[in-house]
Amino acid sequence: MNLPANNPTLTSWVEVSKESDFPIQNLPFGVIQVGEGKPRVASRIGDFAIDLKSLFVLGYMENLPFVLEDFDTNSLNKMMLKGKMGTRKLRERLSKLFQSDNTDLQGKQHHVDQVLISMDEVTMLMPIEIGDYTDFYSSEQHAFNVGCLFRDPNNALLPNWKHIPVGYHGRSSSIVPSGLDFHRPKGQKKPPTAEVPVYGPSNLLDFELETAFFTYQGKPLGETISTAEADDYIFGMALLNDWSARDIQGWEYVPLGPFLGKNFASHISCWIVTLDALEPFRIPGPVQDPKVQPYLEYEGDKHIDMNLDVFIKPEGQDEVSVCHSNFKYMYWNMNQQLAHHTVNGCNIRVGDCMGSGTISGPEEGEFGSMLEISWKGTKPVPMPDGSERKFILDNDTVIMRGYCEKDGVRIGFGEVAAKVLPAT
Amino acid sequence: MNLPANNPTLTSWVEVSKESDFPIQNLPFGVIQVGEGKPRVASRIGDFAIDLKSLFVLGYMENLPFVLEDFDTNSLNKMMLKGKMGTRKLRERLSKLFQSDNTDLQGKQHHVDQVLISMDEVTMLMPIEIGDYTDFYSSEQHAFNVGCLFRDPNNALLPNWKHIPVGYHGRSSSIVPSGLDFHRPKGQKKPPTAEVPVYGPSNLLDFELETAFFTYQGKPLGETISTAEADDYIFGMALLNDWSARDIQGWEYVPLGPFLGKNFASHISCWIVTLDALEPFRIPGPVQDPKVQPYLEYEGDKHIDMNLDVFIKPEGQDEVSVCHSNFKYMYWNMNQQLAHHTVNGCNIRVGDCMGSGTISGPEEGEFGSMLEISWKGTKPVPMPDGSERKFILDNDTVIMRGYCEKDGVRIGFGEVAAKVLPAT
Repeated sequence: MNLPANNPTLTSWVEVSKESDFPIQNLPFGVIQVGEGKPRVASRIGDFAIDLKSLFVLGYMENLPFVLEDFDTNSLNKMMLKGKMGTRKLRERLSKLFQSDNTDLQGKQHHVDQVLISMDEVTMLMPIEIGDYTDFYSSEQHAFNVGCLFRDPNNALLPNWKHIPVGYHGRSSSIVPSGLDFHRPKGQKKPPTAEVPVYGPSNLLDFELETAFFTYQGKPLGETISTAEADDYIFGMALLNDWSARDIQGWEYVPLGPFLGKNFASHISCWIVTLDALEPFRIPGPVQDPKVQPYLEYEGDKHIDMNLDVFIKPEGQDEVSVCHSNFKYMYWNMNQQLAHHTVNGCNIRVGDCMGSGTISGPEEGEFGSMLEISWKGTKPVPMPDGSERKFILDNDTVIMRGYCEKDGVRIGFGEVAAKVLPAT
Repeated sequence: MNLPANNPTLTSWVEVSKESDFPIQNLPFGVIQVGEGKPRVASRIGDFAIDLKSLFVLGYMENLPFVLEDFDTNSLNKMMLKGKMGTRKLRERLSKLFQSDNTDLQGKQHHVDQVLISMDEVTMLMPIEIGDYTDFYSSEQHAFNVGCLFRDPNNALLPNWKHIPVGYHGRSSSIVPSGLDFHRPKGQKKPPTAEVPVYGPSNLLDFELETAFFTYQGKPLGETISTAEADDYIFGMALLNDWSARDIQGWEYVPLGPFLGKNFASHISCWIVTLDALEPFRIPGPVQDPKVQPYLEYEGDKHIDMNLDVFIKPEGQDEVSVCHSNFKYMYWNMNQQLAHHTVNGCNIRVGDCMGSGTISGPEEGEFGSMLEISWKGTKPVPMPDGSERKFILDNDTVIMRGYCEKDGVRIGFGEVAAKVLPAT
């Protein structure tokens, strides 16, 4: 699929630095607030937010299937209800308006002044009103590592793992935007040596490096979405830090899965990069052996080459790189995840969020959680001040960044960052 | 707590039969549609829906904290945003208006004609826009039975079960109102004798007899709700049939819990009975041994004596009673569930749904799922036509009913019923 907006030779009349995640080929969507003003829908180019409400009011969205209310609101959901053809046309329009040789907007400085807002003046808000949140477990190395750490290294993958994209339901209420600090969770846990469970702050707070995708409105209950159809139901992606309290999780999760060990906070990056913008970075996935059921088969390149990095920034210190991974390490791709999710007739709605699961690569240095990086606490990571980390300590900020790069074009997500405050 | 609307001696000028679930002491809330008209919020008395939009427009809600939009809408969420004090006052107002000796409304037949709508003319819609759905696992007999069937009868309860109200996240998109038939789900399963998993319709479709409670807006992320505060955050209850495909569930659920085996459909009864209306039926719960953590301790009677029945109605045959259970059999009450859910700072929102888990009593005949009733298929249940049921067959309708009864007052839920159509 060759979308004009993806053309790597495009340049914009808005200056964009080479290192920016937001060239004219990106044009992600988000929700911004300026000062105490009303939230509104925006896109981004370089160091500027593009105010889509103003762009609409000024008449630059003629012949597009949108109304003012789609942009004059506090989430992308209304806009997303216009479906892939709607949001694709919108991104293509933005691409045209901001191309170097297009003077429609460029030529009207008083309009430019209204539409382009310096990111310095902008607060990013939660971009999507999430319906349901599903988290998958689709990185083989991560599943293998967890299997080694908690079960049997000789049978690290469970019998179902290569047959189904294992997933479970998460909590949508506690998915929050990058930058919202939170308190270390408290709860019940049972240390290995304890006779009875104890209550208190989690001692094993961990990040999980994930991506998330967000859906358009799906089909009615009882219908399925095939792997071939899945692209049409995926709006875009974000970075996701699916925080985990390993001690709380360890005590609670048998037999019904993770609950309070996960639902105290999950952070997403605030700009939703469209699946359209990520198309140039598609690559083949791994050969799947054993052969998957026909409903999980797919054609074409459905994986994405996306660099993913995690940093820990202790209070008052420089950030330290603790992981460099890649979204290409997924065993199950998003098309397979969505086909599996709906094969029983489960319905998806606009704004549903689906997490990849922790994304670990095969090498040390590519593991996507402290559980794996510190190998359950046996390999602590040194910090600049001489201290070390087995898990995340109070006042640490965890930062994740992600970007794709090809043909001189870099499409990124910005970052998802959050600081852990002491337990209340 | 003695609420005037709960007075068992109250009678109404609307005739209500002795067997009705909806005497003047109930006054539940729901969303109705008449013909092709717009959905609106309603209450119910006897065989009539009470149109709250009309009641508001006609001036009967003066000095209550509501606006027209709270009732002229397709869910109870806006009304519920007024909190417990708001909805309590509303129910008390309805109680006054419909008492035998009150002539405010009774005396104006042209108003009565607008406000009371025969249930024959009414379609019940999904009453609440559900945010997150959490399902607990709080009946000891059910957890024991499942432990006996799948693990070890001598260690049927897992080590955490008496320390925490075990729960997990479910799917809210597929929670649907009573009466919506659905197709048998398809998916992957691995029969015990098979070498590899197979794909096809579930052969082990089961119901789960549950109740659900729905929450008011909670506290911000990071704060907790204590067992003492929990009542103020619970709006009301419904019956819940949390359908389960045991074969799909069995293959997928390790290690992250149930997913596609559960999320193809869950049905709720359409009238939400307020927690206020259920107050007279409070009873003590079981002694909890071992002693629970302080945050799970509670004072007062927090269990509810509520009869729960399940019937199977094969196509063209009479319904057959297969279970008579009671909500009093819960080991963990709703206050404990909500305190546990928020102890880590997880936030709840208006309209969140929390299921009890399957409610099984200690005697045979009191088990709340076919898995238990047929003891994994070894004790089939006879039907009127001579056939038998180990699990639910195509074209069977499963009906659940529930009611409390005391001092001559019966407060009920009506029913939750749904027919299983063949797989597509």
